[in-house]
Amino acid sequence: MISLKSIRDAHDRIRPHIHRTPVLTNQTINQRAGADLYFKCENFQKIGAFKARGGLNAVLQVAQNREGTAITTHSSGNHAQAVAYAARQVGMPAYIVMPRTAPQVKKDAVRGYGAEVIECEPTLEAREQGVRDVMAQTGAVLVHPFDDDRVIAGQATAAKELIEDAGIDAPFDLILAPVGGGGLLSGTALTTHYLSPKTQVIAGEPEGAADAVLSFRSGQVEKAPYINTIADGLMTTLSERTLAIIREHVADIITVSDPEISAAMRLIWERMKIIIEPSCAVPLAVVLKYPDRFAGQKVGIILTGGNVDLGKLPF
Amino acid sequence: MISLKSIRDAHDRIRPHIHRTPVLTNQTINQRAGADLYFKCENFQKIGAFKARGGLNAVLQVAQNREGTAITTHSSGNHAQAVAYAARQVGMPAYIVMPRTAPQVKKDAVRGYGAEVIECEPTLEAREQGVRDVMAQTGAVLVHPFDDDRVIAGQATAAKELIEDAGIDAPFDLILAPVGGGGLLSGTALTTHYLSPKTQVIAGEPEGAADAVLSFRSGQVEKAPYINTIADGLMTTLSERTLAIIREHVADIITVSDPEISAAMRLIWERMKIIIEPSCAVPLAVVLKYPDRFAGQKVGIILTGGNVDLGKLPF
Repeated sequence: MISLKSIRDAHDRIRPHIHRTPVLTNQTINQRAGADLYFKCENFQKIGAFKARGGLNAVLQVAQNREGTAITTHSSGNHAQAVAYAARQVGMPAYIVMPRTAPQVKKDAVRGYGAEVIECEPTLEAREQGVRDVMAQTGAVLVHPFDDDRVIAGQATAAKELIEDAGIDAPFDLILAPVGGGGLLSGTALTTHYLSPKTQVIAGEPEGAADAVLSFRSGQVEKAPYINTIADGLMTTLSERTLAIIREHVADIITVSDPEISAAMRLIWERMKIIIEPSCAVPLAVVLKYPDRFAGQKVGIILTGGNVDLGKLPF
Repeated sequence: MISLKSIRDAHDRIRPHIHRTPVLTNQTINQRAGADLYFKCENFQKIGAFKARGGLNAVLQVAQNREGTAITTHSSGNHAQAVAYAARQVGMPAYIVMPRTAPQVKKDAVRGYGAEVIECEPTLEAREQGVRDVMAQTGAVLVHPFDDDRVIAGQATAAKELIEDAGIDAPFDLILAPVGGGGLLSGTALTTHYLSPKTQVIAGEPEGAADAVLSFRSGQVEKAPYINTIADGLMTTLSERTLAIIREHVADIITVSDPEISAAMRLIWERMKIIIEPSCAVPLAVVLKYPDRFAGQKVGIILTGGNVDLGKLPF
């Protein structure tokens, strides 16, 4: 059970190491959507994504409690950089297991934060075995990308800042976040439940990684029927832990197609002049797809990150 | 002679109609440059570029002084949108002469601000004739993109905000701006002369539109040896008016190649997560090209705009 106090403590703990990212609005996009949208810009966060929050909250506690002398995780994405960055902040070695097929630029980014990259075959089994090997050899502590209360409490601080900084008179009608493994979504839902209980939380998910919507309905952790989406940060399935929170505190999960994600991403690039990655265009794609559902509402949207390969744009 | 008072008056006049854009910094880029860089983000300005400032300062005065009942200009770029936006703010009709070859998206943007687009052949003669025709038929007043003291005083307010908002103890060692027709550069130089007289102003110019550097040396308005650059906002030559100010108050003009501009643009996109157009990457390209010249200095850089065709990126 992640309490309000644990979210507040997480925020106090990580505050010296993160940016308080801005909440931006855009008239043109509001007109297009027929709603008042408030974008929490975690693309401007350290390491370029909200994942810095959860990684820091876990790693700072590992260091403070002397739970181990090193950190490990497996990730090909933003969590790898988040853990590497967090470990550097506390002066601990970090061993990041990454598929050998991950882009060189991502491996270089992790090494740039001083972490050691351990390459493995590009399968979940190989990644998990790689982490077990590291733990056995080094005594490193695993910081899982989302199946970890400390990580979830860290991700929950993004919605806390959004609610505190929006500068609106009435509470949000809705807060939207994308869903992959569910760390951000469950954290967002908990924060909103505690701090803005009249606000509904809705998730956006790509049609090409539609596992969470199935799990949400069935109550079991389900796999997606197929995986094929430009939203490469959202391909993971939920865990029992994140599913339980999501089932309790999230109102709905809505899917959108890759062309809808791509169009929403382009709209943000063109009108807001900020770089966001495909995964974080998913909530805006949801709003634009179902205008009747959001008409006239005050909607907070968490823009999760801006780490995009400029050589592989969908437009 | 553009006085400090006229720049302050311009700022007061346009303030209700513009954004006070942020001044951003980035640790990674500072490390790469070996200098402390402060980016004034006019890519977040109304119409996506600093040009809103000059257009507004001129149009608001035309309206207030009842100099005419309509506004006209010729432009295929940001000034077209700036004048259209400014005219809408005062409820005056605007007639924008644009080459028929200009991208449809730019014509649509101008029409989106309620202005009438008048197409002409893509030559300077046809554009000037088009404006003369509009003036004869409608009594519209011309707002030139840069050869106009009111426009220059408006552009000068960007550097004023940069100096006021940087939050640094000592004055800037340097302020950098790109140079096309010289409206922004001359305004920046005047503001800096008045408000931060110990700060040097340096301009960046593309090698593929190297007219200003020749004019700066010879004291005459020169043409570029050839025009071929991705910095499509910087192809214009100076006017006598802007050259005189630049010769008096600018310390140097430094040229950079298209690959250098493109690399600087990509660095800002990747590390700052903001969209800038090629023209405004020119000053950073200058800093990265001559690190010894800027080492350890506090440097203000005006990022001029973010209106870029996402379908035609240089990377």
